[in-house]
Amino acid sequence: MTAITDSSPETDPGELTATIDALAAAAPALASSSPMARAQALTAVADALDASVDELVSLAHDETGLPVPRLTGEVARTTGQLRLFAGELEEGSWLDVVIDTADPDAKPLPRPDLRRMQVAAGPVVVFAASNFPFAFSVAGGDTASALAAGCPVVVKAHPGHSATSRRTAEIVVDAWEGAGMPAGSFALVEGQQAGVTALEHPAIAAGAFTGSESGGTALARIAADREVPVPFYAEMGSLNPVFVTPGALAARGDAIVAGYVSSFTLGVGQFCTKPGLLFVPRGHDLDERLAAAVTEVEPARMLVARIAEANREGQAALSQVPGVRTIAAVATEADAELFGGPLLVATDLDTLLEHRDALLSECFGPTSVLVEYDGPQGALAAASALQGTLTATIHAEEGETAEVAPLVQLLRDRAGRLVWNGWPTGVAVSRAMHHGGPFPATNHAAFTSVGGSAIRRFLRPVVYQDYPAALLPPALQDANPLGVLRRVDGEFTRASI
Amino acid sequence: MTAITDSSPETDPGELTATIDALAAAAPALASSSPMARAQALTAVADALDASVDELVSLAHDETGLPVPRLTGEVARTTGQLRLFAGELEEGSWLDVVIDTADPDAKPLPRPDLRRMQVAAGPVVVFAASNFPFAFSVAGGDTASALAAGCPVVVKAHPGHSATSRRTAEIVVDAWEGAGMPAGSFALVEGQQAGVTALEHPAIAAGAFTGSESGGTALARIAADREVPVPFYAEMGSLNPVFVTPGALAARGDAIVAGYVSSFTLGVGQFCTKPGLLFVPRGHDLDERLAAAVTEVEPARMLVARIAEANREGQAALSQVPGVRTIAAVATEADAELFGGPLLVATDLDTLLEHRDALLSECFGPTSVLVEYDGPQGALAAASALQGTLTATIHAEEGETAEVAPLVQLLRDRAGRLVWNGWPTGVAVSRAMHHGGPFPATNHAAFTSVGGSAIRRFLRPVVYQDYPAALLPPALQDANPLGVLRRVDGEFTRASI
Repeated sequence: MTAITDSSPETDPGELTATIDALAAAAPALASSSPMARAQALTAVADALDASVDELVSLAHDETGLPVPRLTGEVARTTGQLRLFAGELEEGSWLDVVIDTADPDAKPLPRPDLRRMQVAAGPVVVFAASNFPFAFSVAGGDTASALAAGCPVVVKAHPGHSATSRRTAEIVVDAWEGAGMPAGSFALVEGQQAGVTALEHPAIAAGAFTGSESGGTALARIAADREVPVPFYAEMGSLNPVFVTPGALAARGDAIVAGYVSSFTLGVGQFCTKPGLLFVPRGHDLDERLAAAVTEVEPARMLVARIAEANREGQAALSQVPGVRTIAAVATEADAELFGGPLLVATDLDTLLEHRDALLSECFGPTSVLVEYDGPQGALAAASALQGTLTATIHAEEGETAEVAPLVQLLRDRAGRLVWNGWPTGVAVSRAMHHGGPFPATNHAAFTSVGGSAIRRFLRPVVYQDYPAALLPPALQDANPLGVLRRVDGEFTRASI
Repeated sequence: MTAITDSSPETDPGELTATIDALAAAAPALASSSPMARAQALTAVADALDASVDELVSLAHDETGLPVPRLTGEVARTTGQLRLFAGELEEGSWLDVVIDTADPDAKPLPRPDLRRMQVAAGPVVVFAASNFPFAFSVAGGDTASALAAGCPVVVKAHPGHSATSRRTAEIVVDAWEGAGMPAGSFALVEGQQAGVTALEHPAIAAGAFTGSESGGTALARIAADREVPVPFYAEMGSLNPVFVTPGALAARGDAIVAGYVSSFTLGVGQFCTKPGLLFVPRGHDLDERLAAAVTEVEPARMLVARIAEANREGQAALSQVPGVRTIAAVATEADAELFGGPLLVATDLDTLLEHRDALLSECFGPTSVLVEYDGPQGALAAASALQGTLTATIHAEEGETAEVAPLVQLLRDRAGRLVWNGWPTGVAVSRAMHHGGPFPATNHAAFTSVGGSAIRRFLRPVVYQDYPAALLPPALQDANPLGVLRRVDGEFTRASI
């Protein structure tokens, strides 16, 4: 295994400036390229990455220690994302076309002919994540959705997988430009200062980020404090609470133990959807089974030394909170600086509420907290104490739906995805997916970083008023040459006008 | 006329806290109210305002000096907005329902059943505008769209029309709560500190603002710097450039003179869509006609003393820029502190580019700058120098469309609304309208503050994964009891599943 540090060479400032100048120069051509041409180019990128899967997985395995099967699946997910956006471009509803034809009799003012569609927001800087060297990195969902929108992209590579990032970027550039997309409309830069400088560059119109709450919040403030503020979409920390009802506990305690331990230790706990909290009825009698399941999980290499160190520090802090007991801990050897072993601690609701700063902080790694609660009111009190989260899960039986309805309501106010009798890890990439949630899950709960709607972060509407046919984009022309679904005078139709 | 100051009594801090506590307490009930119930309540508010139009117009006329016919029309626009959102709630596409049914064979992961819809973002603080005492104030578009979304609203009144605001709020509360909406889910507060305190309150989930660039930017930074940052939607300054081609100048110079002077002096120039820049071909020969039209416009009362003063200062600054000549100025009497008279100055493109800080700053009032340009390249150079704007207008003849296409492209990158052979003032309230644009027109170009899509600012998606039918909201149930258009496995349909 390659030795990993958290630093990577900084892109030379002059090269960075040239990269962003090229990005800005490519923006008009990319924005006015046809959606079909972008769909074909995204598909070409997907095909090229698939063709290089062995090389890419090998590089990423060396750099991240993630298992080959997981990385192979992640490449498939990544190319699936690229093809999902290609399909969305062809389908066309992302254009959000709304047309109100002229109404000279409208009150209080005559209404002109108004035709609205989505256009590219402009050049985007993407901050790649540590934990997904493909799916949330160089050619990941942020890049795919921004390119789909017609926005040039500069990716700031994560230092945990520099070689993988560089090789991926080469493949993307070749396939993307080879498919006719403007030269310079996709680029990779490296280094923390390069990322900040890119975000501060006047040509940049938006940013996207996946990572820690501290990193996302700091970059969001930089975006907001620019002379010309730009939107910044940060997907950050999340506790992903899971609530188990008495009925579910009685009916399938063993399955819940197995599913929970598997979910919070999957990928050495390095998922933003890792269940960090399990709420179970007091008197659950799960300790032994949980301890047995957790101790079967071997310590494993984590992504970078900084993450492994933070996990050990977080575990130590959790264990020391008064009123917290350890159900199971698998120690790592002292010299295994990159390794992390699982830790499961338990406490009760009163302790959780008393020490909420310590117990309601995300510990990124194979670490989780079991919390014992009393009755439905206890579950509601627990839910009320939670901050925003990407997901919230309930395990319950069919006969308990009426009883848990108030809990669903409370969790909905705090989460972007509500999971029933499942586990939050394993995010399906599909049109309906929402991977977002109230702060600190994200900094703007209206947007998702996974699924077809992720494109919306990189679009803005423009309305044409009384424009001549010759100057209207195809999507807005009477004949509807793209055949997209449009809302015309209030009605949805694919018909011409 | 009532003497106006820019200060109004501050809402007592204790009362403010109680108001926001009540807002937070009302949020769950309002969020879970049926869209139909909210539609009926919005209609009840519209009916009640219409029934009080004479009283409201009289109050607003006394406070703002705006003419009675304009204010009467503005009340109709305001109640029209409320009814537009009622109609949208009934139609249902705002829910943005996307359903992907389970696919156990999906690669790389089996896909669960995923059902996504929009839900209320939470309590909203609305900062009312000076220049629209009804349509962008207490019961204006921000309030209507937030209430439609199911979000409680606290409005920070504009001090320029306190009595109008208070009476409007009484009517809104009576009609809204009388229609069964939760007590305390709409409230009015007054004073600058009260507005800031409300925006900083942990229960507030979003803010909306219409006003100056400095005010909007300052509030947006407060929203971004909160411990829990919240989205803030500011509609701010705009120059609304108008480009006149040689063909249009030759064909209808007189009509352009009349339309331009009427548009930039309408409402004493106190519109965010006022055309602050007119680009005309050098050698236009319009000076005399423009001067004649401008000098026919009498000085008129402006909204508040601060605005009138800023207009006079802005006019003085414009006149003093080297290379700028005055086409026409109508002076106000020295003691008419609230009054503003029109000013039209002219310069050439080189001067504009040399003194862009002075000449490309919005002067809110009956003030505009004519800029002479040479040929199509001159127009493109001018457009390239512009910042973001709400609108950009072209006056051209049918035979010139090919020639102006590059100009349209440049303007589209900078504007939210492209107007052809019209004038930007007079914003139609309709589904297709987009009233927004790149900074400084707004601080988030993806959102509009006018038209049916304004509701999107106050929504966020939630996806239900593998949920039992008994716990799904009506919009997501198999039977589609609301009959809304849904995207199911990629296809748009109103059918059941």
